[in-house]
Amino acid sequence: MAHIQLPEGLPGIRGPMAFSPETAHPLNGLANALLRPDDPAGLSWGERELIATYVSSLNDCFFCQTIHGAVASHHLGDNDWSLVKAVKSDYQQTSISSKLKSLLAIAASVQQGGKHVTAEQVEAARMEGATDKNIHDTVLIAAAFCMFNRYVDGLATWAPDSPDLYRYRAERIAEGGYVSGDAYMPPAELTT
Amino acid sequence: MAHIQLPEGLPGIRGPMAFSPETAHPLNGLANALLRPDDPAGLSWGERELIATYVSSLNDCFFCQTIHGAVASHHLGDNDWSLVKAVKSDYQQTSISSKLKSLLAIAASVQQGGKHVTAEQVEAARMEGATDKNIHDTVLIAAAFCMFNRYVDGLATWAPDSPDLYRYRAERIAEGGYVSGDAYMPPAELTT
Repeated sequence: MAHIQLPEGLPGIRGPMAFSPETAHPLNGLANALLRPDDPAGLSWGERELIATYVSSLNDCFFCQTIHGAVASHHLGDNDWSLVKAVKSDYQQTSISSKLKSLLAIAASVQQGGKHVTAEQVEAARMEGATDKNIHDTVLIAAAFCMFNRYVDGLATWAPDSPDLYRYRAERIAEGGYVSGDAYMPPAELTT
Repeated sequence: MAHIQLPEGLPGIRGPMAFSPETAHPLNGLANALLRPDDPAGLSWGERELIATYVSSLNDCFFCQTIHGAVASHHLGDNDWSLVKAVKSDYQQTSISSKLKSLLAIAASVQQGGKHVTAEQVEAARMEGATDKNIHDTVLIAAAFCMFNRYVDGLATWAPDSPDLYRYRAERIAEGGYVSGDAYMPPAELTT
């Protein structure tokens, strides 16, 4: 049961967002600005969601790692979620680029605390081709998910188990981005 | 030296915000929605800034704890910053309300991780008169500063030492809120 009285039937962060629409608006704005790329030369949407998923798994946030993992898989053609699962388990052994691996190392440091990021990690990412913008975005995505994860779990929100629910929502998000309100409410059979 | 090339002379988070205006906009929107109360029955601006300051001190973020401490002091009439310093050191021994103390305990748990918040802490806050909205806002303020702190320190941004600079900016923020751009650039003599 959540720590406060939230609107019923809304999974994860959607409950607190419905409870507090005035903060939901900038939170969704931040998610869109961070995760949906407007720069074809920058990190792709799938790469950004993978960073978000990885940090959420380090923070042990089931809802966030599952929904953002589903969005990452959608964009990366990872239909059985095997790549996302492997990245969470041991990203060094996966087929993702060396550049993305170097950025995940920075994200893992951010998850521990801002001062954990080292000049050596940043230099290693540059050697793999990371730009200042890539590094900036990685740090802010990792930092933002240290917020989103704490918001979701700090209020003890409800997270459904059904993978189909997360797939359903991931497809809606991939089409329309992160929006306030219950625009992506799944069919009732997925929320039980 | 910051990990990436940031516009020069901008203290703390203002450098990355100038580097990335598209994310600065929702970040400032979130700070305003969270910290500037629109509900006279809710937590005051000073109380919200005190929660932000306390979490920033737990995260050892010098820039955030100093600027938000200065804004808290401005609102709380704490001209010599002694109350803010005492709260950071041992809030239980200060003159703040029992309700605010119970909310700071929740904020400290959020700083460690969302799952650290206990039903007992929430119940204790309710016994001191905290509403669902107070508890929600406390969790989200604490979570948000786990982001802001990591953004500031994860990029190794520059933070000036001069207390007068933070006082100058705190007065501008108290007047105009959190805004993008360099609207509150301090006089040159404060930034050296």
